[in-house]
Amino acid sequence: MLEKLKARVCEANLELKRSGLVILTWGNVSGIDRAEGLVAIKPSGVDYDEMRPVHMVIVDLEGKVVEGDLRPSSDTPTHLVLYREFQGIGGVAHTHSTHATAWAQACRGLPCYGTTHADYFRGDVPVTARLGRKELQGDYERETGLAIVKAFRKLNPHERPAVLVANHGAFTWGPSPEAAVENSIVLEQVAEMAAITERLSLDLWGQPLVAVADSALVDKHFLRKHGKDAYYGQG
Amino acid sequence: MLEKLKARVCEANLELKRSGLVILTWGNVSGIDRAEGLVAIKPSGVDYDEMRPVHMVIVDLEGKVVEGDLRPSSDTPTHLVLYREFQGIGGVAHTHSTHATAWAQACRGLPCYGTTHADYFRGDVPVTARLGRKELQGDYERETGLAIVKAFRKLNPHERPAVLVANHGAFTWGPSPEAAVENSIVLEQVAEMAAITERLSLDLWGQPLVAVADSALVDKHFLRKHGKDAYYGQG
Amino acid sequence: MLEKLKARVCEANLELKRSGLVILTWGNVSGIDRAEGLVAIKPSGVDYDEMRPVHMVIVDLEGKVVEGDLRPSSDTPTHLVLYREFQGIGGVAHTHSTHATAWAQACRGLPCYGTTHADYFRGDVPVTARLGRKELQGDYERETGLAIVKAFRKLNPHERPAVLVANHGAFTWGPSPEAAVENSIVLEQVAEMAAITERLSLDLWGQPLVAVADSALVDKHFLRKHGKDAYYGQG
Amino acid sequence: MLEKLKARVCEANLELKRSGLVILTWGNVSGIDRAEGLVAIKPSGVDYDEMRPVHMVIVDLEGKVVEGDLRPSSDTPTHLVLYREFQGIGGVAHTHSTHATAWAQACRGLPCYGTTHADYFRGDVPVTARLGRKELQGDYERETGLAIVKAFRKLNPHERPAVLVANHGAFTWGPSPEAAVENSIVLEQVAEMAAITERLSLDLWGQPLVAVADSALVDKHFLRKHGKDAYYGQG
Repeated sequence: MLEKLKARVCEANLELKRSGLVILTWGNVSGIDRAEGLVAIKPSGVDYDEMRPVHMVIVDLEGKVVEGDLRPSSDTPTHLVLYREFQGIGGVAHTHSTHATAWAQACRGLPCYGTTHADYFRGDVPVTARLGRKELQGDYERETGLAIVKAFRKLNPHERPAVLVANHGAFTWGPSPEAAVENSIVLEQVAEMAAITERLSLDLWGQPLVAVADSALVDKHFLRKHGKDAYYGQG
Repeated sequence: MLEKLKARVCEANLELKRSGLVILTWGNVSGIDRAEGLVAIKPSGVDYDEMRPVHMVIVDLEGKVVEGDLRPSSDTPTHLVLYREFQGIGGVAHTHSTHATAWAQACRGLPCYGTTHADYFRGDVPVTARLGRKELQGDYERETGLAIVKAFRKLNPHERPAVLVANHGAFTWGPSPEAAVENSIVLEQVAEMAAITERLSLDLWGQPLVAVADSALVDKHFLRKHGKDAYYGQG
Repeated sequence: MLEKLKARVCEANLELKRSGLVILTWGNVSGIDRAEGLVAIKPSGVDYDEMRPVHMVIVDLEGKVVEGDLRPSSDTPTHLVLYREFQGIGGVAHTHSTHATAWAQACRGLPCYGTTHADYFRGDVPVTARLGRKELQGDYERETGLAIVKAFRKLNPHERPAVLVANHGAFTWGPSPEAAVENSIVLEQVAEMAAITERLSLDLWGQPLVAVADSALVDKHFLRKHGKDAYYGQG
Repeated sequence: MLEKLKARVCEANLELKRSGLVILTWGNVSGIDRAEGLVAIKPSGVDYDEMRPVHMVIVDLEGKVVEGDLRPSSDTPTHLVLYREFQGIGGVAHTHSTHATAWAQACRGLPCYGTTHADYFRGDVPVTARLGRKELQGDYERETGLAIVKAFRKLNPHERPAVLVANHGAFTWGPSPEAAVENSIVLEQVAEMAAITERLSLDLWGQPLVAVADSALVDKHFLRKHGKDAYYGQG
C-alpha cells in the first residue's frame, strides 16, 4: 500500500538524520497522498539505523492506523492538523534542531535578517503562543497543531513553511516530504545565523540593535526563487 | 567473570567516545550487577582505540578490585557512592562535555526551558555545592559522590538522572550503562540549547529574561515517555 | 571550449562544498580567462553531487551565454562587475557561510583582531551599504556588484580580497578560482574568531572593548606572506 | 639523520591536522633531540596531504638549517627561543585554533574555571604583552618567543605548558611533540568551555561574575595526574 510514498517518507527521515538535525530517535517526517487522503509517517522511537520503508505507518486524516505493525510517531496528531488546515502541503517535518529550538524556547519568532532566510521564508518565522493548562492536559499533540494554525491566521503557510512551537521545537512543511526536510535544514541554518547576528549588534541596553531586512529585499529573494517569474535554478 | 556486563560497559564507553562527548581518554562509564553487588568500570587513562571488554575492571561496592589487571577509573569512588545511594540505577556515565561542563563551571543548575529537556529530566538538573577544603583534601572522589547525593536530598534521581558537579563536569545515570550514556548525550544537547536560549532573551540588565517551561508541559512530556501510561516509542 | 578552466572552476565549486561552507545548492565559484574575456561559472541550483566540468557555463563579460546548456548562477552579474572592475583577479567565490553572513546581516565590516586575519586581509574587511529600493527593484545582481565596488573606492581589492554584502553574505576573490575559495574559508574562520573575541571583552555598556590589531602587526603578517620580500611558504 | 625524530614530528603535525585544530597549511609542531641540540620542524606552507617525514627540516638551536630541502616554518625562531629557555621540554606546537585565538585576540589570559583545565594547566594560562613597534619591525618571530618567556617570568612552564600570544594564537609544549599536540587539543577545549562559562554568569554590568576554581581543587586535579603521587592513568 502506497509503497512509493512509504519509500520516500523513509528516505526523507533518513536524510533528516544525515543532515545532523536530529540525534537518537528524535525528529519525524511524514508525507501525504492527497488523492487517497492517507499519510505515511515514521514510527515512534525506532532507531534510524534499522528503519526501512516497511516500518512507515499509514494513517488516515483522523489518525486511524490503516496499515503498519508499529505505533506511529507520537506527534502524528500535530502533522494531521497541518495536512487538514494547510491545503496543498505534501510533507511535514519535525525537529528539535539546536538553534531553532533555542528560539522556540525563548518564545521568540525568527526575524528575517537577510537573504539566506528570505530565499525560503518570506518574512519572520512565527512562534506559537504557549499552550495553556487545558490544552496541555487535553489532546496535547492535536492542540499543538491548532496553536500552529492559529499562528498562521494572517500568514500564508506556503510563503513561510515553518513555525517555532513555544518551549518545544520546530515544524516545517512543503510540497513534498523532501521539501519539508530541506526547509528544516534551512531553518536551523538561519536560526543560527540570526542568533549570531543579534550578538554582533547590541545597543547600550544590551538589546539587539540590528534591523530586519528591507521587505523589498525579502520579496526580491523569495520571488526570484519561488514566484511565477522565478529565475533561480534550472526551472 | 561478568563477561556480559564487561562487554556492555566496554561498548557503552565506546559509544560515549563515538558520540563526540569525550576527547582523548576523558570520560568513563560503569555498570552494576545488583545481584552480585559488583561493578564493571573503564580502566584509567586507556586509549579508546585499544579498549576491549577484557580491560574493564570489576570492583565491589567498597571499591576493592575483584578482577582486572588495570587500575580502575580514578572517578570510581564517585560511581560507587551513586550505586549505593540511588537504588535501582544500573549504569553511571561521567563526561566533561563542552556545554554541560560550562554550566557546571558557572556553578549553575540547568533550567528546563523546553520539551527536549523534559523528555528526559523532569525539571531543572541540579548543580552540587562547591566542595570545601576539607573535602578536597580528604577522600576527594568519594566526597564528590556525597555532594551529588546531597544535591538530590529533595529530588528523585530516577526523574532527573543527571547532575552538574560544580567546577567539574557531569554525571548521568539510568537503568543501564546504555541509558546512562544516552542521558549524557541529551544533557549536552539541552545544555547547549539552554545557553543559546538565554542569550536570545536578555532583560535590560543583561540577565536572562526567559521563563522555564510550565510544569504541566514538563510533566506531560516526561510522563508520555516514562510514566506508567507512556505512549512514546513501541512500549 | 576552455576545458581546463571549466575543470578548475568545477573542482573549486566542489572544494567549496567539501569545506563545509555551503549547504544544499548554495554558493558559487567562477574563474576567468582574461585573454579570451570569458568567464566559467557554476550553473544555478544544481546538486553538487552531480556537478561535472561539462555543466559549467561560459559567459562573456556582458553576461551573454557563450556555451552551456544550463542557466548560469543567478549571481553571475555580480561576478561580472567584479571581473570588470577589479583588474587582475582570476576567480570569484560567493557563500552564505554562517559567521561571515552574520556579520553581513549585522551590517558590520569585519575588524582585524589578529594575525590570522592579517595573513590574508590587510585590515578590516568592508561591508557594503544596504541597497536602496531603486537598486533592489532594478538590475539587482548587478547593483550588488556595484555596491561592492563602491565599498572599495579607497581600498585595494588585492590586499583585502573579500567583502560582506549587507543583509546578504560574502564574496571573495583572488588570482585564481582556488585562491577565491581559500579566501572564503579563511573569511569564515576569522569571522567566527572575531565574534567570539568581541564577546570576551565587553565594556560596562556591553560594547566590544577590544582594540583592533596594531597596523604594524597587520602589515608584518600580510607582507611576510604576500609582499615582495615574503618568506612564508616555499616561495 | 634523526629519522625517528622526523617521523614522530611529522606524525604529530598530521595528528594536529586530524584533530581539527588547524585548516589549510596553518599550524606547526617541532621536536628536539636534546643530546644533539637539534630540532626537527614542519616546513613552511606545505600541504598536510603530501607531508612526509623526509620533508621535516632539521635546524640547530641558532636556527641554522642542518638538513632538509625545504624552508622551515616561518615560526621556527619562536620555537627555538622556547627550547633554549624552557629546560626539559621536548616538543612545541603552534595553532590558530578558534577559541584559543579568540582569547589571544581579546588579549586575555585563560582563567581556570574547572577541573578540565586543571588536569593539564595548574592555574590561568597567561597571555603575552602586545609586541611594540620595535619588536614588530625587528626579528619578529624571535621577539614573539621572548614575549612568551617574559610572560613566564614568575610561572613554571612545566605546570602551565601553554601560552596565548596577544593578537596572534597559541603555543603549547610538553615533554614530547605528542604531548605538545595533546596540550593544544586541551587548550582549545578549555578555551571554548571558559568562553561559554562566562556568558552563563554575567553581573548587572555585563561583566563575568563567575569565580575561578579554588586553588585547592586546581592542585588536587593537576597533582593527581602529574604529581609524584599521581594516581590517574596506569602509572
